[in-house]
Amino acid sequence: MKDRFLRACRREPVDRTPVWFMRQAGRYMPEYRAVRERHDLLEICRTPELAVEVTLQPVRALGVDAAILFSDLLLPLAPLGVPFHFAAGEGPVVDAPVRDAAAVGRLRRFDPREELRPTLEAIRMLRKELEGETPLIGFAGAPFTLASYAVEGGRSTHFAATKGLMYSDPRAWHALADLLAEVVGDYLRAQAEAGAQALQVFDSWVGVLDADDYCEFVLPHLRTLFARAGGLVPMIHFGTGTAHLLSLQRVAGGDVIGVDWRVGLDEGWRAAGEGVAVQGNLDPAALLGPRQRLLARVDDVLVRAGGRAGHIFNLGHGILPATPVENVKAVVDHVHAHTER
Amino acid sequence: MKDRFLRACRREPVDRTPVWFMRQAGRYMPEYRAVRERHDLLEICRTPELAVEVTLQPVRALGVDAAILFSDLLLPLAPLGVPFHFAAGEGPVVDAPVRDAAAVGRLRRFDPREELRPTLEAIRMLRKELEGETPLIGFAGAPFTLASYAVEGGRSTHFAATKGLMYSDPRAWHALADLLAEVVGDYLRAQAEAGAQALQVFDSWVGVLDADDYCEFVLPHLRTLFARAGGLVPMIHFGTGTAHLLSLQRVAGGDVIGVDWRVGLDEGWRAAGEGVAVQGNLDPAALLGPRQRLLARVDDVLVRAGGRAGHIFNLGHGILPATPVENVKAVVDHVHAHTER
Repeated sequence: MKDRFLRACRREPVDRTPVWFMRQAGRYMPEYRAVRERHDLLEICRTPELAVEVTLQPVRALGVDAAILFSDLLLPLAPLGVPFHFAAGEGPVVDAPVRDAAAVGRLRRFDPREELRPTLEAIRMLRKELEGETPLIGFAGAPFTLASYAVEGGRSTHFAATKGLMYSDPRAWHALADLLAEVVGDYLRAQAEAGAQALQVFDSWVGVLDADDYCEFVLPHLRTLFARAGGLVPMIHFGTGTAHLLSLQRVAGGDVIGVDWRVGLDEGWRAAGEGVAVQGNLDPAALLGPRQRLLARVDDVLVRAGGRAGHIFNLGHGILPATPVENVKAVVDHVHAHTER
Repeated sequence: MKDRFLRACRREPVDRTPVWFMRQAGRYMPEYRAVRERHDLLEICRTPELAVEVTLQPVRALGVDAAILFSDLLLPLAPLGVPFHFAAGEGPVVDAPVRDAAAVGRLRRFDPREELRPTLEAIRMLRKELEGETPLIGFAGAPFTLASYAVEGGRSTHFAATKGLMYSDPRAWHALADLLAEVVGDYLRAQAEAGAQALQVFDSWVGVLDADDYCEFVLPHLRTLFARAGGLVPMIHFGTGTAHLLSLQRVAGGDVIGVDWRVGLDEGWRAAGEGVAVQGNLDPAALLGPRQRLLARVDDVLVRAGGRAGHIFNLGHGILPATPVENVKAVVDHVHAHTER
């Protein structure tokens, strides 16, 4: 098995720096678009055979060092009692946003082993398909990021409704975040039990909070989540725009801290602290540019990582739809060629 | 005249910390909504009498230490040859995004004293209305932020098209940014000549760039802009999510550096460097919360400012539409009451 990804999660020496990409299965790939012509996003997520097919596409095409389950962050919202759909060009739309204590009180605790069974089935099938060759990563959204979709009703720029709920009714916020932490923690644990060999927690939008709000409204729930999920496999803790929160994210939990491109990887690693692995941090937009500029930026990340044990090469956020596949492949090959120990 | 705002811009001692708010004229005010029922946004911007009326509303209602011209960042795009409109609930929509060198080549240099005459007329009228009591701030968008609207065609999350243009055709990017820097620099200078007593440059979205991209693609154009605009009145240089860029923004120009809420004001000031004034940095969402929590956060900003000369109290971004007016007024009064020297 390609074990360099899992070894790096544990900060053990590796033969080459492992590399995978957030959203490595996605619209930039013709194979994926072909599946999407026949099936919508949620249908793929909820049909194990389709999720398996799409998950494997980048593993075959790119030679990455890890597969990541194809799924959507929002899946746990529906069984909680927060139905949503995807509007063309708009992203997710929550039918009835959760804006107050009454709405939080109507949410329904559920057992992910029942209600999110297709995801777990996809994981079991993927482990067979991958034949122990490439490790499989499971994932879920963190309480703040999931709550932000539930409260705002979709994507947000200012997160005004989410912060408004936090400040005006902290008790309702904590009830919501705690419920999400428990359900998501259980969901992640179920993914590990189904065979996921690592788990990534996406707190994609938490960078809009300052450190005080993070400590009061987010950190305790992440600790609940990591405690419920954890112990079985390495956990990756990811956010964007979190340069000012990295040391707190480290405290919140995870064996690997995801760093976005806004800070140099060396600075980000220093902020996260020694004794933890880091994942990142190429700007996904760099993949849109010409090859020479792209590879110079890849080299910059590698130089800042300095060949230390515990670096997983990745982007600072997901691959953008306009990305040329051959650029992604070039990054995989370049990282492997230039990090041979 | 209330001179504490202008004195703080120059880092001179003040009787109380000056306070004003980005978007202090806006949808959160009933007086503003009453005007908007009869006139659309661009009509207000382009009709001096309406712009004057709306600019004065928060000055009368709140007792802030500065007025800021009511206008829109995008106004200079239309005379450049980039027409746009506001779609309901969607924000600005550019009719034909500027995506390549050919589109950049078709842009038209113009004289803001001709093409943006209503704005300059509003400034002249405002100076009379304000009777030297309250200083007046003019403003414009920075090249990166304006270019991002022109290239993306509206608001963006990932700025993929903008970064794609930078990386793939740096020459076209620099031509676009340079043209914007010259036109906006001239526009700002014309505002000062019309009577604006300070000028704010909004580089609202530049925080999505890392330091290398900022140095290559943004900083030189800001220097052009500040050189063309500057010298007559104090300049405020503002961005969000720029904790990692503050020292570079300082180099780019401005007498006052705007800091958002993601970092403590003391940290932000340290990063911007001594010898410069700072403006900020309450989270606009704090105004949505209960009074006690709000004022505790105001106190935190004041404590971090430490009573040093050169602090202008403001938010880290614009006032949100759901904000209660009485909370805004309470902040003005609290800052004034608790900073008497």
